Amino acid sequence: MESVNAYIDQNKERFLDELFELLRIPSISSQAEHKPDMVRCAEQWRSILLSAGANRAEVMPTKGNPVVYGEKLIDPKLPTVLVYGHYDVMPVDPVELWNTQPFEPVVKDGKIWCRGADDDKGQAFMHAKAFEYMVRTNTLPCNVKFMIEGEEEIGSGSLGQWCAENKEMLRADVILVSDTSMIARDVPSITTGLRGLAYVEVEVQGPNKDLHSGIFGGAVANPANVLAKLIASLHDDQGRVTIPGFYDDVETVSPEERADMARAPFNLDEYKQSLEIGDVQGEAGYSTMERVGIRPTLDVNGIWSGYIGEGSKTVLPAKANAKISMRLVPNQDHHKIAQLFKEHFERIAPPSVCVTVTPHHGGQAYVSPTNTPAYQAASRAMAEVYGVAPVPYRSGGSIPIISTFEQVLGIKSILMGFGLGSDAIHSPNENYPLEQFLNGIKTIPLFYKHFAELMKK
Amino acid sequence: MESVNAYIDQNKERFLDELFELLRIPSISSQAEHKPDMVRCAEQWRSILLSAGANRAEVMPTKGNPVVYGEKLIDPKLPTVLVYGHYDVMPVDPVELWNTQPFEPVVKDGKIWCRGADDDKGQAFMHAKAFEYMVRTNTLPCNVKFMIEGEEEIGSGSLGQWCAENKEMLRADVILVSDTSMIARDVPSITTGLRGLAYVEVEVQGPNKDLHSGIFGGAVANPANVLAKLIASLHDDQGRVTIPGFYDDVETVSPEERADMARAPFNLDEYKQSLEIGDVQGEAGYSTMERVGIRPTLDVNGIWSGYIGEGSKTVLPAKANAKISMRLVPNQDHHKIAQLFKEHFERIAPPSVCVTVTPHHGGQAYVSPTNTPAYQAASRAMAEVYGVAPVPYRSGGSIPIISTFEQVLGIKSILMGFGLGSDAIHSPNENYPLEQFLNGIKTIPLFYKHFAELMKK
Repeated sequence: MESVNAYIDQNKERFLDELFELLRIPSISSQAEHKPDMVRCAEQWRSILLSAGANRAEVMPTKGNPVVYGEKLIDPKLPTVLVYGHYDVMPVDPVELWNTQPFEPVVKDGKIWCRGADDDKGQAFMHAKAFEYMVRTNTLPCNVKFMIEGEEEIGSGSLGQWCAENKEMLRADVILVSDTSMIARDVPSITTGLRGLAYVEVEVQGPNKDLHSGIFGGAVANPANVLAKLIASLHDDQGRVTIPGFYDDVETVSPEERADMARAPFNLDEYKQSLEIGDVQGEAGYSTMERVGIRPTLDVNGIWSGYIGEGSKTVLPAKANAKISMRLVPNQDHHKIAQLFKEHFERIAPPSVCVTVTPHHGGQAYVSPTNTPAYQAASRAMAEVYGVAPVPYRSGGSIPIISTFEQVLGIKSILMGFGLGSDAIHSPNENYPLEQFLNGIKTIPLFYKHFAELMKK
Repeated sequence: MESVNAYIDQNKERFLDELFELLRIPSISSQAEHKPDMVRCAEQWRSILLSAGANRAEVMPTKGNPVVYGEKLIDPKLPTVLVYGHYDVMPVDPVELWNTQPFEPVVKDGKIWCRGADDDKGQAFMHAKAFEYMVRTNTLPCNVKFMIEGEEEIGSGSLGQWCAENKEMLRADVILVSDTSMIARDVPSITTGLRGLAYVEVEVQGPNKDLHSGIFGGAVANPANVLAKLIASLHDDQGRVTIPGFYDDVETVSPEERADMARAPFNLDEYKQSLEIGDVQGEAGYSTMERVGIRPTLDVNGIWSGYIGEGSKTVLPAKANAKISMRLVPNQDHHKIAQLFKEHFERIAPPSVCVTVTPHHGGQAYVSPTNTPAYQAASRAMAEVYGVAPVPYRSGGSIPIISTFEQVLGIKSILMGFGLGSDAIHSPNENYPLEQFLNGIKTIPLFYKHFAELMKK
C-alpha cells in the first residue's frame, strides 16, 4: 500500500492529464455522427495500454465499433485476469442542464466533471494505471488481458460475436469489471447481481397528417392521447406490469435472502431527500431496494408527439412515439419479454390507430456467486483500502454483456465498481470523485495479489 | 358577375404577386424570434389597404402585436361592414414534412402552397381585392372598415382591449370574417357556430435530475409514466372527459336540431379514407359531425419527456410535459374550464411527483343566428357564385375573438369562409385552391350589395 500510494503521489497529475485526453473525445455510441470519435477513442486506448506496459495492443474491427484488445502474458502457469471496460458514453442531452461543457473535464469540489468521468472511461482507466504500476514496480502476479469495447451503452451488439471469434485469445480465469457503483462512500460493495434489459420503441400512427384540433378534435383518435392510455395500462394499481406472462419466469427470492438484503444500510428519508421527491413509488409488497434489486420494471425513457416548441399550437398530431425499457431479473429472457411486449401492445391498440413496436438492444440478467476466489480477492482488496469488508449487492442496472461473457467464453465476471450513486451517470453533470478514482487504483493491485494467491491453493 | 369576372381576369397575376409578398413573411406569432416579422407583415397590410382604396390605413400598437386598421367611409347613411382577418400564422413544425418551403408560395395542381395560404392571409386578402374592385368600379354600396390583427393563432390576447379603446372608430353593422371552411368544394356553407378553447400546459416533476433507469427504475416514480396515467384518466371508457363539472354548462342541443344537422352531407367512409384511419373515435352517443360540432373535447397537442433522439438511452426522466387543449361549446366558460382542469389535475397527481398547470390562451364559443340581414346577404351571395344555397354549419374550430367582439363592440359576426377541409391549415403543406380564392373575391361584392339592400328595408 505504501508503494502504490507513493506511485500515485508522484504520477497523479499525469494520470489526470491522460484521463482528460480520453474524456475529451465525445464517443457517444448511439449517435451516428460520432462514428469517427469512436475510432479515435479506440486508438487512444491502444496508446494507453501500450504505454502502461502491454506487450501487445490492437484496435480490432467488429461489425460495429472496434474493440481494443491488449495483453501482457508473463507466465502460462499464473492465473489470467481479463479486464473488461467500455470507451463509449451516453448522449449528453439535455445539454442545457450541464454546469460545465459535457466533454471538457474539470476538477472541482474533489470531483472530475465530464461525460464518462465515471461511466466508464474513469473506471476503466483505473485498471490501466493499476496495471502500469504493477508493471513498473515489477509486481504483476498474473497474466493480464484487456478488452475495451465501444458499444456498451447501446447493448454491446458486436462484442458477443467478437468474443466467439477470439475465444482462444480471451482465455482467462476471471473477467474483472469496474462499471458499477458502491452503496456509499463509506459502504464498499461488490455487485453480485445485474438486471437484464429489454428496450423497445413504439409508434402510434393516427391520421395521415397533423390535423387542426378544432376541426377534427373529438372525432379522430389523438395518437398522443392513445399512447398515454396504452402506456398507463401497462401498470396496474399495485404497480405491477400488466403484460401477460411478464412475471412467469421471475426468480423467486427466498424470505431469508430478502431478510439478508434488508440488512444493507439504506435510509429512505435521505433517499427521498437527495432526489427531492415527496414519496417513492413502485410495486406493492416490496421495499425500495427490492424494487430495484430483485423485481423487474417498465419505464418510459422518452416520449414525444405534436408541438413541443414555445407557446401553443392547436394540433391533433399524426403520430406519437415512445422509448420504453424493461429491467429484467434472473431467468427472464429479454427476447421473450420484448416479444410479449410487442404482442400485448399491438393487441391492446384501438382500431383507430396503427401501432408499431421496434425492439432495440437487450440483455440477460446476471447473478454472481460469492464463494469464488475472485469474489474473495475483491472482498479482501476492498477491505484493505476501505477499512471495512464490502457488502454483496444486487444492482438495478444492466450490463448485458456480462451474461454473454459467461455463455460465450464460459468465464464468470467480478463486478468491483467504484462509482457512487451521486455520480449522475447517464445524466447531466456526470462526475467521479477523485478519492474513488485513486482508491480504485490502490485496490486493483491488491485484487491481483489476493487472486493469484487464492488461485494457487 | 360579368364585371368582377373580367376584373379578375385582368388582374389575377398581380393579385397573386401581391399575395405572395405577404405570404413570404414568416409571421409566426407564437415564436418570439419572429417579432420583427409581425411588424413587417402589419406594414405590408397597411400598403395593401391603401393601394386597394382605403382613405386611411394605420398600423396601430397594442400591448402585443400591432393591429392594422383601414377604412373607406363614403356615406354615414349607408351601412358599415367591418372586415376582420389576421396576418399571423401557425408554426411550421414538423418542417421536414413539407413538400415545398413553408414560406415560399408555389402554385401547383391549382392550389397555392404556403403557410398562411388559407389561414388567414389568403382569405383575408380576398377582402382587400374585392374592396379594390368595388372602389375602382365605383360600386361600393357600404362604408368599409378593416381590422387585421397579429395574434389570432395565440388567442388574440391584445385585440379585446384594443377594441374597447377604439369602440367608436369600429362602429359597424356587421363584422365580416373569412377564416373558416366550407363543407366541401360543391357544398358551400356558412359557419353558424364556433367552439371555445381552453389551452393549458402541464409539467410533471419527479426527481431533481434525470436518473439512471436501472439504478432507480421501479422505485422512483417516472414522470413520463405518471403523465401518461394522468392524461389517460382524463377520458372514461365512453370517451367522456372526467374532469368534475366539465359538462355542467354544456348547451343541450334539441333532437330537432340534431336531426337538422344530420342532413348535412357527410360520408364516413370517405372521411376515414381521406385521413387513412381504421376507425373514428370519440364520445359515445354522438355522430362524427356532432362530436366536432356540438360537443366539447380534450386533446393532447404536444407531449415530451426524456430522451427523444436517435437510438436508446436508459434514462428515468426528471420531468414530463404536455400541452393540452379543450374545445368548448356554447355556455362553457373557458376561464372556469381551465380552472376545473387545474384543480382536477393537481388533485389526481400522486405524492411521488409535483404537477404544475399553466393556462395558455382561451376563448368562448360562439353561435350565430341565421335570421339576420348579414346571414341572408351571405347566403344569397354564395348561392349566386356556387349555384346552390349554403348550409348553416357548426364548426369544431375556435376563433375566440368572435365572442369578444360581441361582448366588447356589441356587433355580431358573419363567418363566410372559403377554406376547404383539405387545406391542411395548421399542418405541413397548407394550401388554398385558386378556385376558392377567386370565388371569394367574386362573392364578397355580392355580399355587400345584398347587405346594403337588406339593411335599407
